[in-house]
Amino acid sequence: MGRFIKSNAIKFTKLGDPRETLSLTTEEVDTDLKEGEVLVRWIACPVNPADINIARGVYFYKRLPPASLGIDGFGVIEKIGPGVKYVDVNDHVMPLHPHIQGGYWREFQVLQALGLYKLNKRLPLEAKATLTANAATAYLMLKLFVPLEKGDYVLQNAANSQVGRAVIDICKAFGYKTINVIRYRINVDKLKQELLDLGGDYVFTEAEFKENGRKFVNSLDRPLKLSINGVGGKSSIPISANLAKFGTMLVYGGMSLKPHEILTSSLVFKSIKVIGFQLFDYFGVEQDDFRRRTYDELTELFLAGKLHVSPMEKVPMENFKEAVAKTMAGSHLKQLLMISNEHASSHI
Amino acid sequence: MGRFIKSNAIKFTKLGDPRETLSLTTEEVDTDLKEGEVLVRWIACPVNPADINIARGVYFYKRLPPASLGIDGFGVIEKIGPGVKYVDVNDHVMPLHPHIQGGYWREFQVLQALGLYKLNKRLPLEAKATLTANAATAYLMLKLFVPLEKGDYVLQNAANSQVGRAVIDICKAFGYKTINVIRYRINVDKLKQELLDLGGDYVFTEAEFKENGRKFVNSLDRPLKLSINGVGGKSSIPISANLAKFGTMLVYGGMSLKPHEILTSSLVFKSIKVIGFQLFDYFGVEQDDFRRRTYDELTELFLAGKLHVSPMEKVPMENFKEAVAKTMAGSHLKQLLMISNEHASSHI
Repeated sequence: MGRFIKSNAIKFTKLGDPRETLSLTTEEVDTDLKEGEVLVRWIACPVNPADINIARGVYFYKRLPPASLGIDGFGVIEKIGPGVKYVDVNDHVMPLHPHIQGGYWREFQVLQALGLYKLNKRLPLEAKATLTANAATAYLMLKLFVPLEKGDYVLQNAANSQVGRAVIDICKAFGYKTINVIRYRINVDKLKQELLDLGGDYVFTEAEFKENGRKFVNSLDRPLKLSINGVGGKSSIPISANLAKFGTMLVYGGMSLKPHEILTSSLVFKSIKVIGFQLFDYFGVEQDDFRRRTYDELTELFLAGKLHVSPMEKVPMENFKEAVAKTMAGSHLKQLLMISNEHASSHI
Repeated sequence: MGRFIKSNAIKFTKLGDPRETLSLTTEEVDTDLKEGEVLVRWIACPVNPADINIARGVYFYKRLPPASLGIDGFGVIEKIGPGVKYVDVNDHVMPLHPHIQGGYWREFQVLQALGLYKLNKRLPLEAKATLTANAATAYLMLKLFVPLEKGDYVLQNAANSQVGRAVIDICKAFGYKTINVIRYRINVDKLKQELLDLGGDYVFTEAEFKENGRKFVNSLDRPLKLSINGVGGKSSIPISANLAKFGTMLVYGGMSLKPHEILTSSLVFKSIKVIGFQLFDYFGVEQDDFRRRTYDELTELFLAGKLHVSPMEKVPMENFKEAVAKTMAGSHLKQLLMISNEHASSHI
């Protein structure tokens, strides 16, 4: 093969609705690597809600067109440049700094080796492609803010989201009990059973928890010190109001697209804290050792069968428009773009 | 004088609207004091919004009828019981534990000496009667949560409230600058000038701050690390959204009677904290030394002319109905019930 190779890439050329602005194109990649660089062949990259917002230009970090989307993914090292020690050809990797070296919906990409995390090859593909953000978000929210003991309770909404499922898994692994709130939907009982099967201790719909949550929480044998909120709007009221005195509500999202509402009585009479959590604010670029250690621990949880991958739908790269449309419509499985074949090494 | 003395007391006999349930009555007080007790003659007690809510039974701590209102006040020691060392006859005092030994709208009361703070006699009457809660709230919010340096900015709404005015005073004393937001009213320019004269650095109406706040805060020479919120509702949005990354909004009240609304983007993209502040949660009964030291420091600020009393309207005790009605109507000066005459010592 020559120095320049052709590589497929999904790109947007202007900000706006990604169903309209994205197209599959080809770019030339220079395989003459500089000091510290590696050539990555991406295998699978999920479509995240954040990708949609990046394409629209409304996410908190901006990627200016022309650019590619993709904030996490799983790839294989095809070639290493001079001075690269930490990773080698054929290693499985994922990005450590998705907001710096972003845009992985492409076949080949030259990246800094230091910005990659070497994945354990025994992890399932879905875990490799999504380890960067969701499981780490759940893990650090449970580790960094409120000291919990075995038998303590954690209350969360959006319990069926990727982060919510990881919260259930990690709480179970650590010996905490989860009180899970989900939004009503057709076949809600099926979803309830699914979360109970995953290891959730209690599952309520929002309406059920609004009505009976206080009585239920008051009946627990311990104070409720931590709640986790990914929804916002009025859903934030019972998630915060049922905390014990000096309790903490962590907020990692606002799927309702409405401001979080918190009662004055919760704040003032119970002196609760509400803390916004954005993974990469607690996981800075100068904290790579801490990041790698966190991913090592998550890998162990996966390999011990304590952390599960959420169900995902694998979609060939060419069908990206369908995957993006399904993500935007909601109520579908997470969409995983299959960029290339894990075992079809090209070894440039 | 005999062992039992007659004492006037304003009392409510059932929960409800205090304009209807309160009456001036007479009770007998036993002046034969036990170990550690003192007899206090109350001089002046303010009417607080919290008193109204206590009378209604909707405050976070309850006082069951028949009972007296009053969570702070200024009194004179008339007599001391055996073993009392910390205070003496003629000393000026205020309650240290208003929510435990409450109900000061009465002429004479037997209290535990250890539950009283000895006031500096040089303090103005209004300060003696209200030092317990408002100035201490402002002071501890500025001291306990966010390390600030001279030249730093503090943003607050309800800037013309008792707490808000104390925030302006204490910030000025500590070398911090205040950005003050007030609600629109007739003659708003007069109130703006009053807060500027008090030492406020910037004063905006809510509408002005909503429109220009971001631009203004972005133009500051430092990040905005702390904001203070006593209003709630939509007013919480600009008070939190203009914080710098990892900034903190303290909430001590919700005068709007609406839940605090906080944008997901403020929480998640800026990783801000929202912390509810209730004075007596940070100022526990087991922390009397800390309380006394705090009141000593506030006394020094008053005597140095750095902390000012808010204007108050003195009302004879018999006119309590008028004072309560004005407090409930709002837009009046703080009402200060004059229970007895400071200089008319009875020395039982």
